[in-house]
Amino acid sequence: MKPCLLALCLALPACAAPTLMPLPAKTTPGTGRLAVTQSFRVALSGPSDEPRVHASALRLVSRLAAQTGMPFNPALEPDATKATLVIAWSSDGLPVQALGEDESYHLTVDSNQARIQAPNALGALRGMETFLQLVEVDAQGFAISGVTIDDAPRFPWRGLMLDCSRHFMPLDVVLRNLDGMSALKLNVFHWHLSDDQGFRVESKHFPRLQQMGSDGLYYTQDQIRHVVAYARERGIRVIPEFDMPGHSLSWLVGYPELATSSGPFEIGRHWGGFAALMNPASEDTYRFLDSFLSEMAGLFPDEYFHIGGDEVNDKEWRTNPAIQSFIQTHALDGSRGLQAYFNKRIQVILAKYGKHMEGWDEILNPDLPRNIVIQSWRGQKSLAQASRLGFQGILSSGYYLDLMQTAARHYQVDPLTGDTADLTDAEKARILGGEAAMWTEYVSPETVDSRIWPRLAAIAERLWSPANVTDVADIYRRLAVMSDRLEAFGLQHNGNYAEMLRRVAGPAPVAPLRVLADATEPGKGYLRDSHHYLQQTPLNRLVDAERPESGEARHFAGLVDKIAAKPDPADIAEARHMLEAWKANDEAVQPVFAASFLASENAALSHELAAVSSTGLEALHAIETHRVRPKSWIESNQNELEKMRKGRAEIIVPIIPAVEQLVTASGERPGAKENERPAKKKRKKS
Amino acid sequence: MKPCLLALCLALPACAAPTLMPLPAKTTPGTGRLAVTQSFRVALSGPSDEPRVHASALRLVSRLAAQTGMPFNPALEPDATKATLVIAWSSDGLPVQALGEDESYHLTVDSNQARIQAPNALGALRGMETFLQLVEVDAQGFAISGVTIDDAPRFPWRGLMLDCSRHFMPLDVVLRNLDGMSALKLNVFHWHLSDDQGFRVESKHFPRLQQMGSDGLYYTQDQIRHVVAYARERGIRVIPEFDMPGHSLSWLVGYPELATSSGPFEIGRHWGGFAALMNPASEDTYRFLDSFLSEMAGLFPDEYFHIGGDEVNDKEWRTNPAIQSFIQTHALDGSRGLQAYFNKRIQVILAKYGKHMEGWDEILNPDLPRNIVIQSWRGQKSLAQASRLGFQGILSSGYYLDLMQTAARHYQVDPLTGDTADLTDAEKARILGGEAAMWTEYVSPETVDSRIWPRLAAIAERLWSPANVTDVADIYRRLAVMSDRLEAFGLQHNGNYAEMLRRVAGPAPVAPLRVLADATEPGKGYLRDSHHYLQQTPLNRLVDAERPESGEARHFAGLVDKIAAKPDPADIAEARHMLEAWKANDEAVQPVFAASFLASENAALSHELAAVSSTGLEALHAIETHRVRPKSWIESNQNELEKMRKGRAEIIVPIIPAVEQLVTASGERPGAKENERPAKKKRKKS
Repeated sequence: MKPCLLALCLALPACAAPTLMPLPAKTTPGTGRLAVTQSFRVALSGPSDEPRVHASALRLVSRLAAQTGMPFNPALEPDATKATLVIAWSSDGLPVQALGEDESYHLTVDSNQARIQAPNALGALRGMETFLQLVEVDAQGFAISGVTIDDAPRFPWRGLMLDCSRHFMPLDVVLRNLDGMSALKLNVFHWHLSDDQGFRVESKHFPRLQQMGSDGLYYTQDQIRHVVAYARERGIRVIPEFDMPGHSLSWLVGYPELATSSGPFEIGRHWGGFAALMNPASEDTYRFLDSFLSEMAGLFPDEYFHIGGDEVNDKEWRTNPAIQSFIQTHALDGSRGLQAYFNKRIQVILAKYGKHMEGWDEILNPDLPRNIVIQSWRGQKSLAQASRLGFQGILSSGYYLDLMQTAARHYQVDPLTGDTADLTDAEKARILGGEAAMWTEYVSPETVDSRIWPRLAAIAERLWSPANVTDVADIYRRLAVMSDRLEAFGLQHNGNYAEMLRRVAGPAPVAPLRVLADATEPGKGYLRDSHHYLQQTPLNRLVDAERPESGEARHFAGLVDKIAAKPDPADIAEARHMLEAWKANDEAVQPVFAASFLASENAALSHELAAVSSTGLEALHAIETHRVRPKSWIESNQNELEKMRKGRAEIIVPIIPAVEQLVTASGERPGAKENERPAKKKRKKS
Repeated sequence: MKPCLLALCLALPACAAPTLMPLPAKTTPGTGRLAVTQSFRVALSGPSDEPRVHASALRLVSRLAAQTGMPFNPALEPDATKATLVIAWSSDGLPVQALGEDESYHLTVDSNQARIQAPNALGALRGMETFLQLVEVDAQGFAISGVTIDDAPRFPWRGLMLDCSRHFMPLDVVLRNLDGMSALKLNVFHWHLSDDQGFRVESKHFPRLQQMGSDGLYYTQDQIRHVVAYARERGIRVIPEFDMPGHSLSWLVGYPELATSSGPFEIGRHWGGFAALMNPASEDTYRFLDSFLSEMAGLFPDEYFHIGGDEVNDKEWRTNPAIQSFIQTHALDGSRGLQAYFNKRIQVILAKYGKHMEGWDEILNPDLPRNIVIQSWRGQKSLAQASRLGFQGILSSGYYLDLMQTAARHYQVDPLTGDTADLTDAEKARILGGEAAMWTEYVSPETVDSRIWPRLAAIAERLWSPANVTDVADIYRRLAVMSDRLEAFGLQHNGNYAEMLRRVAGPAPVAPLRVLADATEPGKGYLRDSHHYLQQTPLNRLVDAERPESGEARHFAGLVDKIAAKPDPADIAEARHMLEAWKANDEAVQPVFAASFLASENAALSHELAAVSSTGLEALHAIETHRVRPKSWIESNQNELEKMRKGRAEIIVPIIPAVEQLVTASGERPGAKENERPAKKKRKKS
């Protein structure tokens, strides 16, 4: 036994401190320890038997049972003085959860009882999630340390957009991700339900929408009502998006009369834009959309309704004489003016059905009423512009989960930095929050969880917690804990990773493939758009199995940072061990490439990981032995490393920047000479 | 790259050969390779659109999509000449699947097409499971090697008994285990639905059964119909068991008038027998049971109906004057005769509702009709006895999954060995097969999958495959593959192991706890009965998380066998490496014991694993250096090892027998002397 290690662990409160995410606005340590035993009971204290609170409290009991492995009495305790947890709320809240509805709560734990006190039923739900995160194992049992938490979200709009058009996501995928969202206190599920590649909702007014536009993959109205109710019970608003007038090819398959050009049309099978647009010059289009939107307004109770409006390629309009004549007749400002005209007509229809309109940056137009919401994929500048004009806005730029960026990068994006930082307080108040966007060109039901989780938790914290909560190292520590919790909660990001790697390995042993996969990452940004993907292209390759972010590469980069600052032998030994393992793996993984067609394309990647590791080992050796590598060596290696940055088979080697750092550090430093002796010995000589 | 290793892998057909389980009766390698690409389509060819075959074929397409990660056209192909797989069957089979219904199929694969041909719809289902197991990854793609399979089960009754009374198993647990059963071609789900600790079925005739006897944990009649239909679609019969006249305490809570003694009664909360028995001397009992069984006979369509009948403690009958007088009046042979009288009455009622009676060994009585089935927990001797009397029987002794025996041990149990081996052919034909028994005193919904899987697959093979399929090493190789497949298929034995270990570790790092858990096993047999468990006792300890069988311990034992036969340096090095890791882990795991109350009870176990490993290292060193340990050292170490066999905190150290083998091997051998020189040098001298 290493007593020092043990003592360290016991001494550090981090070992047993609860892992909260998102971090509450204010946490004050208290005294005492509330034991969570099999006699755990919950009591409710509110103005009525509010169904969300009641159902969430019952779920809290069963979730705590799952978390602890202890069966509890599932019934609520009528006597609050006897309960372990009392949930109290002052108002039941609105029948349809609304933007800005109070989500705050106050949570106290002492050695006798835990108590959630919220002005609103929604806050009670948020407090319950925090409560579950507070329960920890210690040397005596399950328990919560005494604490007082005062919490409320920084932004009222904290969402996830899920594209269910390009790849249909079955109901269970939607439901388990709603569970994950609620655990992170997210409150908007933005459901991208139509696009060129599929129309995913059953319409009774226009049944050919789903019959001809969905390949049979759509949500029935019963399923939609179930999702809306499921989300409400978890404090989540559901906002549907029906993209128009562009991104609308799937509508036109069944209803070609909506189109600017003449049909027939087929469902879009490749990615990127399609030319087909709805016809904004035809009154029939508005009659159709009025009827359709009246039906959908009844199905989706939220007061906001998303009409997309993005990426209109106006070629069809520019070349269509009837459209051009319509533009002239109505004195519109070309295609841009025509889209604005269309949007205004739609806005009037939506307003008739009690809805505020929401759309992407492109819908921004001074003539629209100020109660619409602009969702910005363009960034803070566009958002600041909208806000100055008096529009509300949410940020999605920087939160695109499909671009495979790191959690740290998403975490550092703030709706109120950059151009929005200079806004007045009133203008800032119109920046409502943000939404992560999960576009699914390269995402299947099997891979979607790993693209969303755990990175979405970092975005959720950015949107809930105070602006000054920015510790990147701490977010990674907590993300690791949350990741396991989410998996236990039903998400499948970890399980599917293991299963997909086994499939890629085929009959060969999976272990060396996993070494490669753990150390590498899918390429970033729009890399895959350059290839020829179709909707039916299998997403079963290593790039699909891999996690967006390599924890090992991040750990290695951390070691290199420390080594560059101060070459500690233990850090050097650990970095060397990692590099040696990666280098050696290239040989070990060859049988996998030989045995499986799914793996063989990754031979070049493995070779490059080994080459990069080899370079890293040479640089590390120089640093360790206080030798200085010549400039020519530095430059030629940096060139080689740069060339390898683009990756292979859509996968990159993320340790390259850290190895470049090592290479640079092994070069000339002020006062150092090539082949200098180890520093200590030198000092002795002088 | 190690070319020798690679060449070995490529040369061995085992690397890419399909892993079939249960092994078919006859497999003949063919020629050619059938590519499984995205154009994969299935055609059906049978006398009608048989719903089971149709639904199973659609599931086959979606399961193959999940297996390969390739989206397929989900629709069936109407033109058989264009299909990749043709499923042909001659007869649709019975409306209620019956004992002995033909399950055979013939499966051919060549480079053009795969074809399943079955006399019966059931055989088509079995063939589809084999087909899915044949699809492999190779260097070119997904494919099946040309093959011809002629397959039929050895026994017509291949079941799993699941006790849902002692711990209620939610519907999703039942359904996912039916999925697993169908993948292994099992055909009987024996649903243990009532016992002292809970009555789990909704009765409309007698609603207090579930209202007062289940804690609210029961299956509604709709759920039961769903399970029966779900099972039928997978070729599985559902046989309910309502245990009577003993093991019936939960009935008596709501209906004390059924009892021999007077109530009130409460649901049984501890394990082992309860005194309460139904009253076989009262006509009211039979009126109640007639009405109850008429209701249940309608709910469960199978022609067999299980009445339990086991473990009647007759104390209440012996001391009850009314019962004794009834025995005298009817000239019965004491309590035994009284139970036989009761069984005969029940049998008559069941026959009226079209059911054959099934029960445990205790119902055996020459006066009963010969169409009943005896389920034997007592073993082959009892089974042989029943068969000689003309009764049908199935074996469960040796297949008790709750006893935590190894897969090998279950695999070696055969219904037709021992006393049954001497039966005539006609008598043998009455041995219908067997059933694994999953009693749930110490099993929760969280742990049940790991207690059933993958060991049940070994029993399934014993009951399906020819008697001469007995290669234990091969079954372990295939079980490892099946285990991953089952997890991908929805079973949770692997995922829950990881999650439970994390819970036990609490805030401490889980890795050293996993080293301990991977090397140890839950104690065997009825070990836990000696402790004070109640129905609500949490099953969240290390003993609950651990797998029934340690793969590492088995691997180590294999190494020791090889070393004992011929001390190869590579084997010695590997065994030493394992022992050193286990020995060192005792220090590494201490922070876990300090941090988590769930782990701390395992400190002694870890210490013993280290002590056993230490002894193993000393013995190994002696063997390696050709030194002979003195007899006193051997004896004292063997004594110490024997003492540690009983385990700690209900967990055993399964490497002890192998270490004892090492200790013995390090002692005197013929011609060897204490402290003899290494053998090679000695030989040189002579």
